[in-house]
Amino acid sequence: MEQITVLGAGSWGTALAIVLADNGHHVKLWGHRPELIEEINATKKNEKYLPGVELPSNIEGVSHFKESLMDVNTVVLAVPTKAIRDVLKDMRQTIKKPVTIVHVSKGIEPDSLLRISEIIELEMPEELLTDVVVLSGPSHAEEVSQRHITTVTSSSKNMKAAEYIQDLFINQNFRVYTNPDIIGVEIGGALKNIIALAAGITDGLGYGDNAKAALITRGLAEIARLGSIMGGNPLTFSGLTGIGDLIVTCTSVHSRNWRAGNLLGKGHNLDEVLQNMGMVVEGVRTTKAGYQLAKKYNVKMPITEALYDVLFNGKAPKEAVDALMARVKTHEMEDLVNIMENR
Amino acid sequence: MEQITVLGAGSWGTALAIVLADNGHHVKLWGHRPELIEEINATKKNEKYLPGVELPSNIEGVSHFKESLMDVNTVVLAVPTKAIRDVLKDMRQTIKKPVTIVHVSKGIEPDSLLRISEIIELEMPEELLTDVVVLSGPSHAEEVSQRHITTVTSSSKNMKAAEYIQDLFINQNFRVYTNPDIIGVEIGGALKNIIALAAGITDGLGYGDNAKAALITRGLAEIARLGSIMGGNPLTFSGLTGIGDLIVTCTSVHSRNWRAGNLLGKGHNLDEVLQNMGMVVEGVRTTKAGYQLAKKYNVKMPITEALYDVLFNGKAPKEAVDALMARVKTHEMEDLVNIMENR
Repeated sequence: MEQITVLGAGSWGTALAIVLADNGHHVKLWGHRPELIEEINATKKNEKYLPGVELPSNIEGVSHFKESLMDVNTVVLAVPTKAIRDVLKDMRQTIKKPVTIVHVSKGIEPDSLLRISEIIELEMPEELLTDVVVLSGPSHAEEVSQRHITTVTSSSKNMKAAEYIQDLFINQNFRVYTNPDIIGVEIGGALKNIIALAAGITDGLGYGDNAKAALITRGLAEIARLGSIMGGNPLTFSGLTGIGDLIVTCTSVHSRNWRAGNLLGKGHNLDEVLQNMGMVVEGVRTTKAGYQLAKKYNVKMPITEALYDVLFNGKAPKEAVDALMARVKTHEMEDLVNIMENR
Repeated sequence: MEQITVLGAGSWGTALAIVLADNGHHVKLWGHRPELIEEINATKKNEKYLPGVELPSNIEGVSHFKESLMDVNTVVLAVPTKAIRDVLKDMRQTIKKPVTIVHVSKGIEPDSLLRISEIIELEMPEELLTDVVVLSGPSHAEEVSQRHITTVTSSSKNMKAAEYIQDLFINQNFRVYTNPDIIGVEIGGALKNIIALAAGITDGLGYGDNAKAALITRGLAEIARLGSIMGGNPLTFSGLTGIGDLIVTCTSVHSRNWRAGNLLGKGHNLDEVLQNMGMVVEGVRTTKAGYQLAKKYNVKMPITEALYDVLFNGKAPKEAVDALMARVKTHEMEDLVNIMENR
């Protein structure tokens, strides 16, 4: 049994702490708000993020950052992408011996256009970093915390590290596969939030399931097109972290990004929507990064570009979606062949 | 403007007749039940199959088979797969000059293991058959009849024929793409119904969205694995007729196959379910064909095999699903690499 630290006591960090605790590990769950940590320790609940779920006794809430990282070899990084650099800076000033970092956030940093594993490698000195692993897949926190069957992928440049993390997390309900393609895994996980926002918009506008299926299919094509050019394996986008995660994010009521898009489609503006959500909507930030990546790599990403115009240029959602759907008649395979030519 | 005959006045045949009528064509809609045709002509409605939808005046219901096929160059075949051979036999004794047949049914014939286009080529003498085209994609009839935006693929060995059908059907709401891979288009359209039944079962059992997303992802992998060995282009399974149709069938309340699976998951037996549906559930027959294809081509199709045991060998749905989900930990890419090696 290991001593593991989870940084970030939101819904996903807490759900993963439960998985690790179920497997008998001792888990320190750090959050930056002392009152949330007090609640976790006093009531064994995290009502704001996982209402109704009882936390196992081997999860220990810790609000003191330094204390949470004492004597630990494995750190699960479960903070919003926006906060990752700050947390890493604190970490490198705190830890004394190298750790394996498992990151579970889905995003790409605007402007720098770095994946999360690249940010980790940049921010952490080599001598403090054993390996970087990403854990990703179709996995709503609510369902994981209720021990519903869930499958995810563990990926790393070092397959031994991916397998080590697989062993820590795997159990009867939480099935962990491995995939050596960390680029594809991270790109798919990040960019699907863009498509989920767009799918929410079409639903909010009252378009049907046929239109949404078309949007998801074309969304997968544009993710794979970009991801392959960036060095990902095109096959990864057909797997759990690609199409699997895309489906769950676009079709489940649990999805924050879908819900935010749905409100946009119903006519609310972005500020209202973000206030209304009360949680981080990663897709908004990722849309900016996706738009910049499309320009940088000169890849056609019509859905990303349309959503960028809706979010940042005040374009009406209906106008953007109708333009997307009204593309001239074309040969379906062109898009797909383009992906494969970039392998 | 053309004179087009649609054989089959169920929900999909009627919806496609509406699309053609919207485009200004004159459509003869044939059905074998005179009372249904009378209703269509008298009320301009087809309440059993498309409740609440008004039919355009240029749709003419015809119950006399021979009359429906007079002076026609293009026939849309929209009957259940089980009835296709009989209808083709009647057709070849009726028509005098060659026709292009557009088939829109999704299935594979058990035992013979033929795709629908192959059955058409077998049953129709060469001198009576100009071309065979398949029209397939994520397209619930209810939504098409309400002019919701929908995308489909037109496919044929002869791309000129596929483009001719594209031109007949395409309009602002009904977007038609072309794809030369008729094998992949037909296999994807047929086999997705197996996965939809399985997805309905997991939903009926109360498993969550995470599990369903995993099932759909693995379902796509097994469809692509078989379809590629049968000569389909692996890329087709990432397109509208592959993942697109799979998503809509597994996640929409409109889907009959999903609904049938859902009832099975809730504990009803197959006979009860089929009675309860009142419409053809293609997936049941296709599961038998899929099971036989897996044996014939020696391809691993765990979901198809599990569903076959539930439908035909009395296996308990929960037991079958749990066994599917509890596969040993493995390397995700193996499945996917297998697909590509078969290109």
